[in-house]
Amino acid sequence: SSAQSEDLDPLRALLELCANRYYISPGQTTSELFQRGRSCSYGPLGMELKKNLLEQWWHSVTRSKSQVFGINTLSSRKDTATGGLRIVESEHVKQILEQQELSREQLVQKVQMLLQRSSPVRTDLLQGALEEFVPSLELVNRKLPFGLAETGLCFQPSDGSVCSAEVTQTSLVWFCSPRTSSQWLDHWTRQRLKWWRKFALSPSDFSSSDVPEEELEAAASRGVRIVYSFPWGQEPLEMLWSRGNTELLHTHKGAHSTLQCRNGRKTVPHVVSLTGNMDRGVMAFLSNSLLQLKNVDGKQKLQQRQVLKLHPVLAPVKVALDVDRGATMEMRQVCEGLLQEFMEAEISAWPGYLDTQATSVEQLTAKYDEMGVLFTAIISENTLESGLLQVRSRDTTIKETMHISELKNFVSRYISAADNV
Amino acid sequence: SSAQSEDLDPLRALLELCANRYYISPGQTTSELFQRGRSCSYGPLGMELKKNLLEQWWHSVTRSKSQVFGINTLSSRKDTATGGLRIVESEHVKQILEQQELSREQLVQKVQMLLQRSSPVRTDLLQGALEEFVPSLELVNRKLPFGLAETGLCFQPSDGSVCSAEVTQTSLVWFCSPRTSSQWLDHWTRQRLKWWRKFALSPSDFSSSDVPEEELEAAASRGVRIVYSFPWGQEPLEMLWSRGNTELLHTHKGAHSTLQCRNGRKTVPHVVSLTGNMDRGVMAFLSNSLLQLKNVDGKQKLQQRQVLKLHPVLAPVKVALDVDRGATMEMRQVCEGLLQEFMEAEISAWPGYLDTQATSVEQLTAKYDEMGVLFTAIISENTLESGLLQVRSRDTTIKETMHISELKNFVSRYISAADNV
Repeated sequence: SSAQSEDLDPLRALLELCANRYYISPGQTTSELFQRGRSCSYGPLGMELKKNLLEQWWHSVTRSKSQVFGINTLSSRKDTATGGLRIVESEHVKQILEQQELSREQLVQKVQMLLQRSSPVRTDLLQGALEEFVPSLELVNRKLPFGLAETGLCFQPSDGSVCSAEVTQTSLVWFCSPRTSSQWLDHWTRQRLKWWRKFALSPSDFSSSDVPEEELEAAASRGVRIVYSFPWGQEPLEMLWSRGNTELLHTHKGAHSTLQCRNGRKTVPHVVSLTGNMDRGVMAFLSNSLLQLKNVDGKQKLQQRQVLKLHPVLAPVKVALDVDRGATMEMRQVCEGLLQEFMEAEISAWPGYLDTQATSVEQLTAKYDEMGVLFTAIISENTLESGLLQVRSRDTTIKETMHISELKNFVSRYISAADNV
Repeated sequence: SSAQSEDLDPLRALLELCANRYYISPGQTTSELFQRGRSCSYGPLGMELKKNLLEQWWHSVTRSKSQVFGINTLSSRKDTATGGLRIVESEHVKQILEQQELSREQLVQKVQMLLQRSSPVRTDLLQGALEEFVPSLELVNRKLPFGLAETGLCFQPSDGSVCSAEVTQTSLVWFCSPRTSSQWLDHWTRQRLKWWRKFALSPSDFSSSDVPEEELEAAASRGVRIVYSFPWGQEPLEMLWSRGNTELLHTHKGAHSTLQCRNGRKTVPHVVSLTGNMDRGVMAFLSNSLLQLKNVDGKQKLQQRQVLKLHPVLAPVKVALDVDRGATMEMRQVCEGLLQEFMEAEISAWPGYLDTQATSVEQLTAKYDEMGVLFTAIISENTLESGLLQVRSRDTTIKETMHISELKNFVSRYISAADNV
């Protein structure tokens, strides 16, 4: 089986590990969506990783600058255009189709009307932010630059082969004076690339490049793409556009004067937009952190092990609590107490001691390495007597003995140190 | 104008305050959605309040028990049924309707096929959790009870007058042995009611009641409703159902044995579901915390002021940083430094010093009280000399003088204390 897993291509190896280790739900559909950078059914670990990633994005964007405000806009907006994705109630459509007394023309008319009255669903968060521009102006006393940040679910139109799908997007819409928009695009490109690379095991797999002129969006004068080099090819993670002010003017038609900012002279600001796909972000960091290690053991046999070396800040489980063989009720109670302590400190811990299946320490270690668990704490008979437990590090594979009262601070310091690098 | 605002009914007063103070975006549509307990366009403060509420829910549900795991399921599932809400691309429908060569029958057939192939959108999070039950069983070593938690966007069918709309729901799906399901329903009702009341100014406005038998959902043997008494009537915030195992069996048809848990004897678990509407939750806490206070001032004139006494943990802004009249560059720099310090400590601070419009201290205080800001720190000429600043409390209206180096810990301790009550 070791020879078999060597033969796996990187994509299959990653998908198998993710499904086995609670990152994504098992199944063909889930894998396909995941692979295409769309939202899929995430298991407990995938959910936590995505949550950590979104939190880091939020902190980096809203807390680094005083001029960024969070918003929460609607997917279903009143829109005069009838294009795009719409939500319909299938029962309502069926009722129309079943009315035998309707002529062909009446039928067409009724379906058209139903479509017009249906709710649109958003494909990105830009429009919502443009609409929030005017109410937000008061917040900043009409001074530029400032930004509106949002994360949320968006829908992607079908690409022929599959249905429309969901994506969790991040969006920063940055309003600035026309003459500085190009500098801001450069500023945000540097910031965002630095952010992606901060959490990477091989930072050079994340890169940015200008969008060629022929691929620019209609409104944009410049565009930058942040991409991740998967083993199977490059995929975009985040798009940055310098978009001028035509869309802003169009959104607030006939209200030109309410758009003006105090920036030396009165100007209608330009827009720089940053749109990230955090589902693909999850996949990029999983792919980036999966290491295939080969060892030759004492019996000269080739051992293969997989370690998910996710950044300490992103890792969904910081510490696994487990018991040595011959677990007693008292040992479990110690684990229970530790778990409570970690929960209160908001450090995510894994209740490994609940699993009563007989497994060797090697099997346990292999499992936790594949889950990307930072530390494994083993509570033994000895812990009950002396208060000492064994802590194994995922990254150094070294086992340390420490007192039970030190564990929480040890883990917490380790994560903070990694965050401040 | 003081007489005028007295005449406002409670709903209008609340909506006006929310739109003026950055909780919701101005506009008729927003107000209507908000009022009906649906997602609306939230401004920076509303977004932060909703975020805080969702975080508290998450902590309370996932961190209190070791047997609750978070998941993130899809809204668009493969479903054999064709009912419910669907996402269609309006262009595709229009293309069919415009094909003149199609007969009436062909037209009907084509629209039906398009509908069948379209993606369903979820109206709640229950189905996703039922599907995750089997992959989650391994996590808990087939032991009951355990739960799957999720928060996310759901869509509500239109109610005739308006389009389908979005709601942010919370969901805990609890799997337990059949004979304990009724006790668990009672347990969770107590827990949830306690949670809602923890953050309330008048806890008795939150209450629970059994759902009468004739209103039970088809699958449910018992139901409990947690409601909030708005000044204009009661509205449900959260529904708890004891639902048996028919839906679980239906979701995993033909896989009866994979559903069995080790619980003394092999059983297919029963399901207790908890579904909360956090958009209505936001409105309930806003309504609950809005106080209308009347004072008679020195000149015997009636003064009316409004204070949004949101719980310290929920309040979107913990501290506003402002400067005394005659602000200098140095004073602003002190504010900037404080803001940075609060951001790093993840305590949300309001950069009031950015606003350069001339306002009196009274106007400022009135504004911050309406925003629900816990503390207002005023940096003055004196701060530059002695390091002392003035801190006003929203709840006591008392102004204290403290050293600038104490401010962060003071605010942080106050919030922790309120959280641990």
